[in-house]
Amino acid sequence: MTSDAVNSESFHTVRWVGDSLTGVLRLIDQTRLPTEYVEIDCRDVPTVWEAIRSLRVRGAPAIGVAAAYGAVLGARAEGASEPAAVVRALKSATASLRTSRPTAVNLFWALDRMEASLGQSDHRDAAAVLDSLLAEARRIDQEDRAMCRAIGRHGAPLVGQGQGVLTHCNAGGLATADYGTALAVIFAAHEQGTELRVFADETRPLLQGARLTAWELKRRGIPVTLICDSMAAQVMREGKIQLVVVGADRIASNGDTANKIGTYGVALLAKAHGIPFYVAAPSSTFDHSIPHGADIPIEQRDPREITHGFGRQTAPEGVEVYNPAFDVTPAELIAGIITEKGVIRPVNRDTIAETLGREAMT
Amino acid sequence: MTSDAVNSESFHTVRWVGDSLTGVLRLIDQTRLPTEYVEIDCRDVPTVWEAIRSLRVRGAPAIGVAAAYGAVLGARAEGASEPAAVVRALKSATASLRTSRPTAVNLFWALDRMEASLGQSDHRDAAAVLDSLLAEARRIDQEDRAMCRAIGRHGAPLVGQGQGVLTHCNAGGLATADYGTALAVIFAAHEQGTELRVFADETRPLLQGARLTAWELKRRGIPVTLICDSMAAQVMREGKIQLVVVGADRIASNGDTANKIGTYGVALLAKAHGIPFYVAAPSSTFDHSIPHGADIPIEQRDPREITHGFGRQTAPEGVEVYNPAFDVTPAELIAGIITEKGVIRPVNRDTIAETLGREAMT
Repeated sequence: MTSDAVNSESFHTVRWVGDSLTGVLRLIDQTRLPTEYVEIDCRDVPTVWEAIRSLRVRGAPAIGVAAAYGAVLGARAEGASEPAAVVRALKSATASLRTSRPTAVNLFWALDRMEASLGQSDHRDAAAVLDSLLAEARRIDQEDRAMCRAIGRHGAPLVGQGQGVLTHCNAGGLATADYGTALAVIFAAHEQGTELRVFADETRPLLQGARLTAWELKRRGIPVTLICDSMAAQVMREGKIQLVVVGADRIASNGDTANKIGTYGVALLAKAHGIPFYVAAPSSTFDHSIPHGADIPIEQRDPREITHGFGRQTAPEGVEVYNPAFDVTPAELIAGIITEKGVIRPVNRDTIAETLGREAMT
Repeated sequence: MTSDAVNSESFHTVRWVGDSLTGVLRLIDQTRLPTEYVEIDCRDVPTVWEAIRSLRVRGAPAIGVAAAYGAVLGARAEGASEPAAVVRALKSATASLRTSRPTAVNLFWALDRMEASLGQSDHRDAAAVLDSLLAEARRIDQEDRAMCRAIGRHGAPLVGQGQGVLTHCNAGGLATADYGTALAVIFAAHEQGTELRVFADETRPLLQGARLTAWELKRRGIPVTLICDSMAAQVMREGKIQLVVVGADRIASNGDTANKIGTYGVALLAKAHGIPFYVAAPSSTFDHSIPHGADIPIEQRDPREITHGFGRQTAPEGVEVYNPAFDVTPAELIAGIITEKGVIRPVNRDTIAETLGREAMT
């Protein structure tokens, strides 16, 4: 599909096309943006696994939705004609998909839901099991869309008229089913008539800010200025930023937040300049089994993302590289967490439990 | 020249080859590193201007030395046979070279010295004037080499055994005639047997850290880990950094320091983690005509450095970009300034005057 075909605002980051027996998972290949808009059809688990691993689909909520549909693809893989075989195939698929990326908790949350949904279906025949799995995946997808809009509704009032908003990485429509988390706040404020300008960190090494966030904001006609990550402090110092809002890949039960590498630094810079720093994320991003950020596993990625990032070698052969994909921002640096259930503010174990509901904690 | 030819540690960032009448300014083309080691010969002012503008030669002290030799090339441009014509040609050359880059004060300092040196020569004939100009340029070059070693001597004791040292951009041999300022501190500590590891910020947009600092350190066998700029905070948080040392492009008389964009952010992050942040720079980098950092002119560079950084488009067509080449770190964030005359610590107008000598202030 050419970029002419996507001139309208809306796009489908992740969607299921067809029925449970022959349908496909269709993804925007985000590694090709912004210069090419290409969709790929996934028909089996290895293709979904590779798409998640290679960041063709990325962003914690979008990974969750893609994995749910991927589980459906896996469940039908053996062409099973009896329910027990479908269940076995599903378990094999979810086990595989769990290994695709370690940090985004929505991946595990979505796969847990897919498995749990089996318990609720009466396993009359294989087709019925597949139908019920696809229905669960579609629910996860739909809930994601509703969740994003609720986050936008709760977050929009935080953006003042004429303000500058800094964001890091991409927590937009491309990171979710379609509307985003951090960018949902910006989209909703913009739709309500709030004039604003976004400063987008390009977000090395993989440039999600330059490639994806700038692309989404431009499509929606929202003023955006692209900067290198190293420029955020200077832009803050010049008084151009009144609010920082970012997404999250996993949030510990005390509010410590794992997000794209560089987020922790932005939070420190915001604090130094007296700028409120917000996280926007659905309740599914909270991992209540993890008490502190220090316990969140941090994915280490290929050194070549840094040394050969732009299609050209930019560092000496064989140089040692450190390439953590995420960092953890401690709760005390976070002014609030914008969820679909409301804004958690201040951020601590009690306010999190209050907003998300005590039952979610167990 | 192939990279095999430069396996030894030493290289000449900037040098004059030949006599005053037919010699050339030979530069390492730093835009080709680290994958290619290429030297270019400059025979006229436009070539030198372009080399400075395009960062083939960069780093405040190296720019100063290159500009001084460039002034010699300009002075002989008209093939002048009488002294007055040589002087006119020199003035035209320095006027042009002053427009190549706005922030590095060493550029202006070196060109001022070249002009002032004319007053000391007896203008018997054109060849004698050219000889005296070349002699002055060679003095600037030699003084730079001596200055770098003195900075290394003064700074080396700041590096403790087994420490991690973070640096931003390249303030190494490639930024000076041959030994560096910030890296001189590291080289000298290493030569004295101090075990250390350098963490090099890659330094977007132009990746001087990845391309140049990592290259220099590897050549000298000093352990170096390359990181993206956005990873510095995390590396500090992990306890891997005990010292930050960077170069400078211009220092106001109160100690506020202009250096590569991103430096100010690193200084804030260092403060947040209780890590001392040092600047290493020769006295020629101080601009005593400028009382505060806010008065230092900051060069804005081509948006394409961000959107098309390494031969590939990484942002949507026509996106707005902010690309300041430098930022200013306020004196209060700087633990000390390591000069060839000693370490200025704490950093303020008085301690600067004490170390550099009151006469330098006038």
